[in-house]
Amino acid sequence: MMFETALRDRAEAVEEMLRKILDERILPGEIARPEHLMAAMRHGALNGGKRLRPFLVLESAALFDADGEAALRVATALECIHCYSLIHDDLPAMDDDDLRRGQPTVHRAFDEATAILAGDGLLTYAFDIVADEATQLPAERRAALVLALARAAGPGGMVGGQALDLAAERNKPDEGGIIRLQAMKTGALIRFACEAGAIVAGASASERETLAEFGSAIGLAFQLADDLLDLTADAETMGKATGKDAAAGKATLVSLHGPAWARSQLTGLVSQAHGLLEPFGARAALLKAAASFVAERNS
Amino acid sequence: MMFETALRDRAEAVEEMLRKILDERILPGEIARPEHLMAAMRHGALNGGKRLRPFLVLESAALFDADGEAALRVATALECIHCYSLIHDDLPAMDDDDLRRGQPTVHRAFDEATAILAGDGLLTYAFDIVADEATQLPAERRAALVLALARAAGPGGMVGGQALDLAAERNKPDEGGIIRLQAMKTGALIRFACEAGAIVAGASASERETLAEFGSAIGLAFQLADDLLDLTADAETMGKATGKDAAAGKATLVSLHGPAWARSQLTGLVSQAHGLLEPFGARAALLKAAASFVAERNS
Repeated sequence: MMFETALRDRAEAVEEMLRKILDERILPGEIARPEHLMAAMRHGALNGGKRLRPFLVLESAALFDADGEAALRVATALECIHCYSLIHDDLPAMDDDDLRRGQPTVHRAFDEATAILAGDGLLTYAFDIVADEATQLPAERRAALVLALARAAGPGGMVGGQALDLAAERNKPDEGGIIRLQAMKTGALIRFACEAGAIVAGASASERETLAEFGSAIGLAFQLADDLLDLTADAETMGKATGKDAAAGKATLVSLHGPAWARSQLTGLVSQAHGLLEPFGARAALLKAAASFVAERNS
Repeated sequence: MMFETALRDRAEAVEEMLRKILDERILPGEIARPEHLMAAMRHGALNGGKRLRPFLVLESAALFDADGEAALRVATALECIHCYSLIHDDLPAMDDDDLRRGQPTVHRAFDEATAILAGDGLLTYAFDIVADEATQLPAERRAALVLALARAAGPGGMVGGQALDLAAERNKPDEGGIIRLQAMKTGALIRFACEAGAIVAGASASERETLAEFGSAIGLAFQLADDLLDLTADAETMGKATGKDAAAGKATLVSLHGPAWARSQLTGLVSQAHGLLEPFGARAALLKAAASFVAERNS
């Protein structure tokens, strides 16, 4: 299938760029790169994920004929942020997970302190990658990308969502609370991924907004599909523990409204996402396929 | 004394800006700011530190007549990075400290997971502050500041230094190893602080390099003075546990060469730092006083 081939192809490009920047001996202004720390960062970043967020950056950028190399660097930076968040989420003080994509989590393969630092390192390095002149974009766009990324990942976005998620274990949120939590914890980065392509390309403010809305729609779909999977998939397919939400009595939209409602919501979100890209015609085929994939994925 | 008055004055300005940005209701692109997380970030950031790094940013910028408001925002961003590093360093998996400046550390006042997230939040927010157009500088300078800050704080700088510090508990580093560790763990941010003022001001490459070298010299002095203090001061004066290095058998330059050698090194570093600022004449008086203060401080 064409979409899955494209997804694998882009994932390989991102993996190669991740490997390149993490293998870099030393950059101007750096003093040394401690090998133990770099190994932990590689363990957390080079783990064969689907690289969905980078795919969305690359395809959103391609929609506007943006520079592919600059888009690849921004996509790689975003993946560094995503991977740091997984490393910290997996820590004993947080979700306390031993497995991630079938491999030991960073604090299991190394130790807790190294995992904290590896996450800090990936988070910090993400902004280095975007701001560097090696990302051959006008400084105005590099600064705009740093800002949008920091805001999506920060206390008003992903980190805040993780804090709400911790609080949800003590006090079950209502439906509005669940929607907000998910928009922050997983939605914000996916929204940024789609918006970033438009920023890289220097697209108009309205085009940027359209792509951001597309990102919001598939971010919601992503989370609904995830909650459905947690209910139905087994650990072997997922490469991580499943059924944890139900076991923890964790409220999700799926637990509130049931799987049938969730599937109908997913259909609506995909159709909304496709509608937003109508003006781009056939050029948007892969992004549309990504929306369907996110909603229908079974792992 | 004039310098200490100036230091207190700048610390108040930074404290006020920190309070303002952490009290902000919500910025464009943010979804919500969970109060529990923001409270932990405030606890870690608004703790009455000396704000030495921000002082260095502000005074380096003033040397070139840079915009004071822009410099204050960059100074505040740097302090967010410094405070995040303290929050994570204090965690049970790292230094496991209960006290910081006489107050409970963030993981003691809140919990471990919240402390991890508060650190992540402050780190991420630092780049938001610098990249935002509210930092009224040309995009070229905002991008250059993000890059220099990320590189100073990242795996080739501060985070890497922290990783080396953890490793040093198992394998005592030699003299070169100690120097590298300290240049990364504490030196890199202090060097950035001085360099940042020149970047904010759009100073020449050679002026930028001079300020960076000044920063390196006082970064070294800062660490030597810290190691001396750990040997000689008591916990009450410091507001944190002392004598920990010696108790842990931790190698420092002071433990290798003794306090007399360290005091003579400090004299040399201060004179080197003062020499670098000679060309700026009387305008550099406060920065020179900062160099002396760093070397002579007793808390």
